[in-house]
Amino acid sequence: MSFKVLYECSKTGARIGELITAHGTVETPVFMPVGTQATVKTMTPEELIEIGAQIVLSNTYHLYLRPGHKLIEKAGGLHRFMNWPRPILTDSGGFQIFSLGNLREITDEGVTFRSHLDGSRHFITPEKAIEIQNSLGADIIMCFDECVPYTCEYEEVVSSVERTAKWAARCKEAHRFPERQLLFGIIQGGIFKDLRHRSTKQILSLDFPGYAIGGLSVGEPKNLMYQVLDYTIPMLPDDKPRYLMGVGSPDCLIEGVIRGIDMFDCVLQTRIARNGTVLTSSGKVVVRNARYSEDFSPLDPECDCYVCRNFTRAYIRHLFKTGEILGLRLTTYHNLYFTVRLMDKIKKAIKENNLAEFRDKFLQKYGYEEKEN
Amino acid sequence: MSFKVLYECSKTGARIGELITAHGTVETPVFMPVGTQATVKTMTPEELIEIGAQIVLSNTYHLYLRPGHKLIEKAGGLHRFMNWPRPILTDSGGFQIFSLGNLREITDEGVTFRSHLDGSRHFITPEKAIEIQNSLGADIIMCFDECVPYTCEYEEVVSSVERTAKWAARCKEAHRFPERQLLFGIIQGGIFKDLRHRSTKQILSLDFPGYAIGGLSVGEPKNLMYQVLDYTIPMLPDDKPRYLMGVGSPDCLIEGVIRGIDMFDCVLQTRIARNGTVLTSSGKVVVRNARYSEDFSPLDPECDCYVCRNFTRAYIRHLFKTGEILGLRLTTYHNLYFTVRLMDKIKKAIKENNLAEFRDKFLQKYGYEEKEN
Repeated sequence: MSFKVLYECSKTGARIGELITAHGTVETPVFMPVGTQATVKTMTPEELIEIGAQIVLSNTYHLYLRPGHKLIEKAGGLHRFMNWPRPILTDSGGFQIFSLGNLREITDEGVTFRSHLDGSRHFITPEKAIEIQNSLGADIIMCFDECVPYTCEYEEVVSSVERTAKWAARCKEAHRFPERQLLFGIIQGGIFKDLRHRSTKQILSLDFPGYAIGGLSVGEPKNLMYQVLDYTIPMLPDDKPRYLMGVGSPDCLIEGVIRGIDMFDCVLQTRIARNGTVLTSSGKVVVRNARYSEDFSPLDPECDCYVCRNFTRAYIRHLFKTGEILGLRLTTYHNLYFTVRLMDKIKKAIKENNLAEFRDKFLQKYGYEEKEN
Repeated sequence: MSFKVLYECSKTGARIGELITAHGTVETPVFMPVGTQATVKTMTPEELIEIGAQIVLSNTYHLYLRPGHKLIEKAGGLHRFMNWPRPILTDSGGFQIFSLGNLREITDEGVTFRSHLDGSRHFITPEKAIEIQNSLGADIIMCFDECVPYTCEYEEVVSSVERTAKWAARCKEAHRFPERQLLFGIIQGGIFKDLRHRSTKQILSLDFPGYAIGGLSVGEPKNLMYQVLDYTIPMLPDDKPRYLMGVGSPDCLIEGVIRGIDMFDCVLQTRIARNGTVLTSSGKVVVRNARYSEDFSPLDPECDCYVCRNFTRAYIRHLFKTGEILGLRLTTYHNLYFTVRLMDKIKKAIKENNLAEFRDKFLQKYGYEEKEN
């Protein structure tokens, strides 16, 4: 398994690469749809393949609680359990556990938390997080890190950076299948340049096959996120994949790629879809709004996806107003397709050395001057 | 448009036929999945075609209220609105309106009722029910009838039979597109032999291109329903399709075909699917039950549908326990496939003149001695 940069943009930091995993090769830059509970909400695996999804992300925290990693191991691993033949990335559960707020308690050893489902107590260590991910069998697995709010004081961030480094070493040590599961290190450091540098050096010293930038897209302004990328990415080696965790709005995808990011994941596409909102080449459309009740055009007139070829805004609005599940399916399908196609366009622009121009045109047409995401 | 009987069973009343409509030919006997609100719940049109659904039913009452028949007419009719290229049958709304209980008031002119959605008042006459169905544009449309509970007193049933006949004449008169929409008459008469005979004679005298038996599957014991079929069907002409409304459990499908029924519709398959219950060759399986948590076999080991080829009971149970929409999709798909395949097997048994033996074997294996449906 390895990563190769195939092409580098002459004007930006963007690159095209391929990441070889136990379940096939992923062309980067890539957007990974999120399948939290071993299913990308509302979609079948066949639909994801039709859309062009190359790899999906699934959540260790959720699968550990339900149905349990041991059950999935008995099923033959996560790929077989959910019938997804392509690569999978599992997160470590860290982000979810640290989002539990006062339901959890942290020590250097690990984290004690209460399940959001039934209040039961659990203790997760770096070793346990890797054990769970070894059972799940994803192609890419993540170190157990401490993710702090971006509003944290400097001293707290120092502490989380140090703990994240120690835990990363323990994760690497505990990992049983390095030959078939790529373990990525995660860089923390909040919005402090020196701490991002410190964390990057610490994590790089452990020599992982890929590096993720964590602790972003947690409520901070986008410009602040871009600044962090601007001073962190240059420290990363060229020959390893770079994964920006939890980021995936159209503008952030383009800005991330321009700065040299190879991998993204985000729940935005599927979450807003279930709320009746779709991404289009002219910006977001809230298709459940009354203004679309007699609009017999497709969600996005410039889109050639299954949904846009076959259904109208009026019909999809009707499905939402009547609470019909097909509505959620159609908007989800379209949003994922839109995003995968956007990544294709980004790759094309990289090859043509005009990614910056592509960004400007895309954002203008999308209406990003309004600063929505 | 016409109906032809292609083959008659030598031992039972069963027959194989074809019904030619404006959107293609339907092979009978046929099971029609129900798409109440212009969507068979959770399914795309492509999936229904893959399953082998030849025709779907949609509900006039629901579509009249939301999104409104005029909107669907503007969309180019129901086929285009829901993107279903094959035949559609719409009911008249009668059954739903009469199920509203004290939300409605009946006179010879029509029915005043309050919407179950917002309490708004509506007045539906036979002419209006046909006008709505003309706007929707289904291939087969139904007369507006009065459907009474099976526990009704004789005199009340007399009154509903008489009203149903008068309304049927008005429906026929009001129908604007007899050349492209087949208007079926509906026979009422409750569980009274003489009233079923009276209603049959009245409706037959109006000469419709097809006849439905209404007022059954409304809570009465199955044997009582079979008795009504036994004394009603022999009065019906051989050269017209016979539709048993609202009936579709596996045993009733077989018993109906044996008695000479050509068309069925039922919400059972899709409704129980959403509750985590599937039909299998060995009877119902409540896949959300804990006993299937580590069952890595398919829903029905004898089924070759997309779901049974790709997913396990354990995975589908996980989807139900976690509230994931894919679970509803998979059980719905399987239940519809199971039923369409059952109709195929019934047709094969008719051709081989062993439908009665097929019934006995099927019901024994299914476990129908327990009298479940």
